[in-house]
This record gives sequence, structure tokens and C-alpha cells, in this order.
Amino acid sequence: MKRFLVIGHKASTSGDFSLNDMPGSAGRMDVLCRCINSCFFLSHSLRHDVECYLVLLGEPGPSKIVLIKGDEVKYLSPDERSAGSLLKKALDLPCGEKLRESTKGVYVRKGDLKSILNEFEFALLDENGKDIRDLENVPASYLLSDHQNFTDEEAEMIKDLPKISAGPKIMHADHTITVILNELDRRER
Amino acid sequence: MKRFLVIGHKASTSGDFSLNDMPGSAGRMDVLCRCINSCFFLSHSLRHDVECYLVLLGEPGPSKIVLIKGDEVKYLSPDERSAGSLLKKALDLPCGEKLRESTKGVYVRKGDLKSILNEFEFALLDENGKDIRDLENVPASYLLSDHQNFTDEEAEMIKDLPKISAGPKIMHADHTITVILNELDRRER
Repeated sequence: MKRFLVIGHKASTSGDFSLNDMPGSAGRMDVLCRCINSCFFLSHSLRHDVECYLVLLGEPGPSKIVLIKGDEVKYLSPDERSAGSLLKKALDLPCGEKLRESTKGVYVRKGDLKSILNEFEFALLDENGKDIRDLENVPASYLLSDHQNFTDEEAEMIKDLPKISAGPKIMHADHTITVILNELDRRER
Repeated sequence: MKRFLVIGHKASTSGDFSLNDMPGSAGRMDVLCRCINSCFFLSHSLRHDVECYLVLLGEPGPSKIVLIKGDEVKYLSPDERSAGSLLKKALDLPCGEKLRESTKGVYVRKGDLKSILNEFEFALLDENGKDIRDLENVPASYLLSDHQNFTDEEAEMIKDLPKISAGPKIMHADHTITVILNELDRRER
């Protein structure tokens, strides 16, 4: 299983945001929606071997984790509103520390970065990291930030993770996921 | 200058579509919006050396071409609605056979695939093409289809173009653009 974990520093933790204003009042939820698209969509099929974890740290709190499983998810179309609509339903669901399923293949719980960091061996996608094309063995799990840099507290938590670069230019999180998955595809040939 | 030409087989040729229903009544305009995003966005900057041509073939007709220039475009944000809003304005503008600017860096004219195919030396992105990583010299201009296959008539027009593949799995058009641009970035290092 491949995993991508994306931190949404301002992303709404309540489902009462408008699908018409995801970049604004929903705290750049559009960034996370595009990451979901990049994780799962192939032409006329879904990537069943990918899981997408989103850490949502915005208002009103507490922070939440949403997990989308590629081998289970339903009702997901490629457009941003479709992913946003599934996130709204997940964030509308009352939840505790354990994952609850909101729609098929979409799960939500309370939690922060720390609560998930030790579950898998993540590699950090970082422009100063080692080029993924130069690695003999590629990691299965990757950590990215949204449009904001990691906070000092986050940077301290992740300082010992291996750093991997997707190319010479600094890309948006969703584009980075696409490039990484293309490299993994090539190694599975 | 790098160029991507994307055919929107059902994409609305009028600006009266709803930004809330781009996958539906706008004829999969969401696909073209994501291609615009992939063409231009880097983290905290735009790709000034890319031009994005869209061929819109949907209702009510006649077919139109929209050109977005990376070194001129303004008012473009990464979310689908932002690109959709610029396309609405372009398609609302009365136009003839010559390009007219609708908003800064966005141009529109009447026209079809044939009218643009001879302007540049396009390569066709095709899963059966030669892997771009194996090319000594990479093309500057690429042609893609949206979610639909090329029609028989289009296939006849493009049958002599060099075919290039972006990887072993068939990807969405926007993901393909991202992977191609990553390869071009690496060759400019």
C-alpha cells in the first residue's frame, strides 16, 4: 500500500464550509481536494493501492484526520467539488479518537500529526531531499505540507525523516504526488 | 516556449455555464480547468514559459480556441473555479477568427483542431508512444485529449505526429502535463 499524508494547516475541521469558497472560508480545502484527485485517479480507473491521509488543523478545532482508502472509496469524481463534498460529510460526522466511516471508504477521527506519524515510516517530500529517481528503493509512505511551510513544532517532529525530492522545481502538493506516483508506476513495470 | 494543446470534446463554447456544475452542463470543463492548473502553477510562482491552448468543441458551437499565456496571465488561482471563471469570461466575448483578449493573458477565437495543428510541431501524448525519458531531445509542444478518445476524424489529422508516453499507466490529461513538465524541468537543470 502507498500512502500520502498531507497537512492542511488552515483546513476547516467542520463540515459547514461552502463548496463555492473552498480556497477562502474553508481554509484552502481546494488544495486537499486536488491532492485526493492526484492520489486516486487514473484514466478510467482508481488507484486501489493508495491511501490518502489528511491532517486538518483549521477552525473551529479540534484537529481531525481524514483517511480515504483507494480500494474502498465510492462516490468520488475527479472535480474539486466532488472531493470537497466527501470531506464535508466526513467533517459533519461526530467522531472521537477512533476512525469512523462517513461515506464508503472515507474515515474521520480526531487527531493531529503526532498521532499518525508513528503509524508508518514516512519520507518527507522536500526540495532539498535526495532525488527520488536516484533511490534504489523507494519509500511507500510520503508526507507533504499544503501551501504553507511546516511550523517549527512540526519541523521538530519530522526532522529525522528521510528527505526526498520530486524534481528541481518546487511544486504544489498535488503535482508532487502525481510525479511520485509516476515514478512508483515505472518501478512496478 | 512550451505548449500544451488539450481538446475538450464536449466543453461548452458559451460562457453561460455554471461554475457549480462544470463536470455536467459545462461538458467536463473541470478537466480543462485542471489542465490549466497543471500548465502554470509552481509553488508560489507561475510557469511563464508555458502556453496552454484549449480546443472547445461542445454546445452551442461553433468551436472555439482559448489560449492562456503564462507570461501574461493574471487573476488565475489554482482552484478549478478560478480557471473556470476566466474561461467563462473568454467564452462570453464575441469573437471571430482572430484571437481577442478577454482578461489579461487569456485569448479566444473561433477555430478547431485543424486550424491550430499546423502552427507548431506537436507531439502526441499517447500510451503507446516512446517513453519521454528515453528521448534525447524532447519536443516543446504536446497535444492531449480530455477524458474522451480522439475521434476518427481527429485521429486521421494527427496520425503522423510523433507519439510520446509519460509512463506505464494511462493518466488524466492534467496529470500527464505535470509529469511532462517535471521531465522538462529536469532537462533544464
